[in-house]
Amino acid sequence: MSLKASGEFDFIERLQIRFSRPLGSERSYGIARGIGDDAAALLPSKKKLRLFTTDALVEGIHFKRRFSSFQQVGYKALAVNVSDIAAMGGQPRFFLVSLGLPEDVSLRKLSELYRGLERGMREYGTDLIGGNTSAIKGPFFISITLIGEVDEEEMLPRDGAKAGDLLFVTGSLGDAAAGLERLQKGLGPSRRSALVQRQLRPGARLREGRLLAQARIPSAMIDVSDGLAADLGHILKQSGLGAELDLSRIPLSSALKRHVKQHAPEKSPLDYALYGGEDYELLFSVPEEKLPKLEALIRSGALQAARIGRLLDRGKGLLAEEGDGRRRKLRLKGYDHFDHFRRQGFAGR
Amino acid sequence: MSLKASGEFDFIERLQIRFSRPLGSERSYGIARGIGDDAAALLPSKKKLRLFTTDALVEGIHFKRRFSSFQQVGYKALAVNVSDIAAMGGQPRFFLVSLGLPEDVSLRKLSELYRGLERGMREYGTDLIGGNTSAIKGPFFISITLIGEVDEEEMLPRDGAKAGDLLFVTGSLGDAAAGLERLQKGLGPSRRSALVQRQLRPGARLREGRLLAQARIPSAMIDVSDGLAADLGHILKQSGLGAELDLSRIPLSSALKRHVKQHAPEKSPLDYALYGGEDYELLFSVPEEKLPKLEALIRSGALQAARIGRLLDRGKGLLAEEGDGRRRKLRLKGYDHFDHFRRQGFAGR
Repeated sequence: MSLKASGEFDFIERLQIRFSRPLGSERSYGIARGIGDDAAALLPSKKKLRLFTTDALVEGIHFKRRFSSFQQVGYKALAVNVSDIAAMGGQPRFFLVSLGLPEDVSLRKLSELYRGLERGMREYGTDLIGGNTSAIKGPFFISITLIGEVDEEEMLPRDGAKAGDLLFVTGSLGDAAAGLERLQKGLGPSRRSALVQRQLRPGARLREGRLLAQARIPSAMIDVSDGLAADLGHILKQSGLGAELDLSRIPLSSALKRHVKQHAPEKSPLDYALYGGEDYELLFSVPEEKLPKLEALIRSGALQAARIGRLLDRGKGLLAEEGDGRRRKLRLKGYDHFDHFRRQGFAGR
Repeated sequence: MSLKASGEFDFIERLQIRFSRPLGSERSYGIARGIGDDAAALLPSKKKLRLFTTDALVEGIHFKRRFSSFQQVGYKALAVNVSDIAAMGGQPRFFLVSLGLPEDVSLRKLSELYRGLERGMREYGTDLIGGNTSAIKGPFFISITLIGEVDEEEMLPRDGAKAGDLLFVTGSLGDAAAGLERLQKGLGPSRRSALVQRQLRPGARLREGRLLAQARIPSAMIDVSDGLAADLGHILKQSGLGAELDLSRIPLSSALKRHVKQHAPEKSPLDYALYGGEDYELLFSVPEEKLPKLEALIRSGALQAARIGRLLDRGKGLLAEEGDGRRRKLRLKGYDHFDHFRRQGFAGR
């Protein structure tokens, strides 16, 4: 890592060190060496699997400075990675940050970014163990690699689902996409609206993921980051299954319904839930015999989750059941910021 | 990680999977889950420490397309990370890739990038376990997080050096900076010259790092990526020491000397060695009592390394001894691509 980048960059090193101090002694947290050497070193994990994920936020693609503060960008960069660890049933522990810094990102903004990261660190219980900072003649980017851990028996992959398993999703869907629309259309005094907050400051469902994993309820789990249809599509593809969704059961917030009614009456709130993105809810499949256990969790108030459908044999594809009992095929795609690659001829496979 | 990015990006997923298959069964290599889920999972490391480093190459800052092929960029992105693990005495094992892809990077170029990564994977024995790909409206970037391992007793931090220890460096210094100059000035049929190759396709001193670590010879080690003066500066700062360099002993290639004589007669080859960068040699300190062991290694031909100076008490700073026995102070800085941050008032500390 090039915090070593010749001392001229001490101030970032100081920032990183300031925000990287674990609450206890480093060693008690499993860190043999933190920031400041060629590489960080972690003590051996005795029994748990280590989980690894990487995700980036790029200015102009994932956020715009006129909508997001750098604090929000820092927090979100960590949260979207935590969401991936949560979707494996894991606990996030350590992370590394790689930054691309254009000239017009001031030290103040950089310090805000780290404050956002710090909020995420406290909320999700993670420690910063390393980083790299590069200049860039172009947009700002932050790429995070997050390291988590999980007991092997508790790990929840995408491909464990079986036909007949029931589909559940936490929270509500479509809010973040509606929040983005509110920002883009400049709708009202909206910066604090619940929808906009879901877009700018999404929370990862870490508690819910751990709860489900420890109770060993799901047969498969994924986080919903590209819209329900696309992410369900991944489970179907990797498990070799089809599914039917009961559209009337998909959890929609009243804020979303209000937004669509007032500002996009030509659409349905379901469009946002199925094809929007960035909800960071957890989508999981549950074998019938685990249902009582799950329902007890939901009734106790420990978990908010809605039953939205069922897995089918592969040949069925993805079916949607409307309120009136009719079924139709759903397309599986979600939001796509890589349209140009399709134009190069790699589309539609 | 967003290989999940909605299936539209299948072709990169396919590329990643193609280049990520370990030679044996995944499990025998310690991989519980590779690419294709929300996160990768590694089996517990029983006794070894896990090492983590991250480093990025950004187009326009670290490479230019008119000089480097994407294959070279892929290889170099991995090699510069391997160099950091080598400098800890470790063995690289697994890595994750985060890409920023502008529209004008074709699939062919992307495939070249992965071929370069694959060369590095074979050479250094590493497996790709995860990745993320984002669009970017700006320059291409590749950020790699590399995971290595090392026995705790063999780990070589930067801060273990003591006054009186001798300083050694592997290989030769200054070549990569001269290679960059040749490219920038368009000097002659230079694309295959040794200097240019050191710039475009630097090798990490992995074998040397492991050899030194296993023989437990160095008291501290760092890779020379920002120029000898800057990287020695890091050891001095972190060990609280000074040093004297014997400038006449700094290893300079005959290609570098020829280049300077022909094309930059106003400079000395030492300018390149002290203040250039990207050599990816290993700089290490050796306690006097380990000297016979090191010299035996060098004599046997197993290691190429030159003795270039000695560590002193802190107050001495960094002194340079010229051939004539006179001493002068050296500045510690190397190449700096963050000049603008200094202009913001954080300079010169």
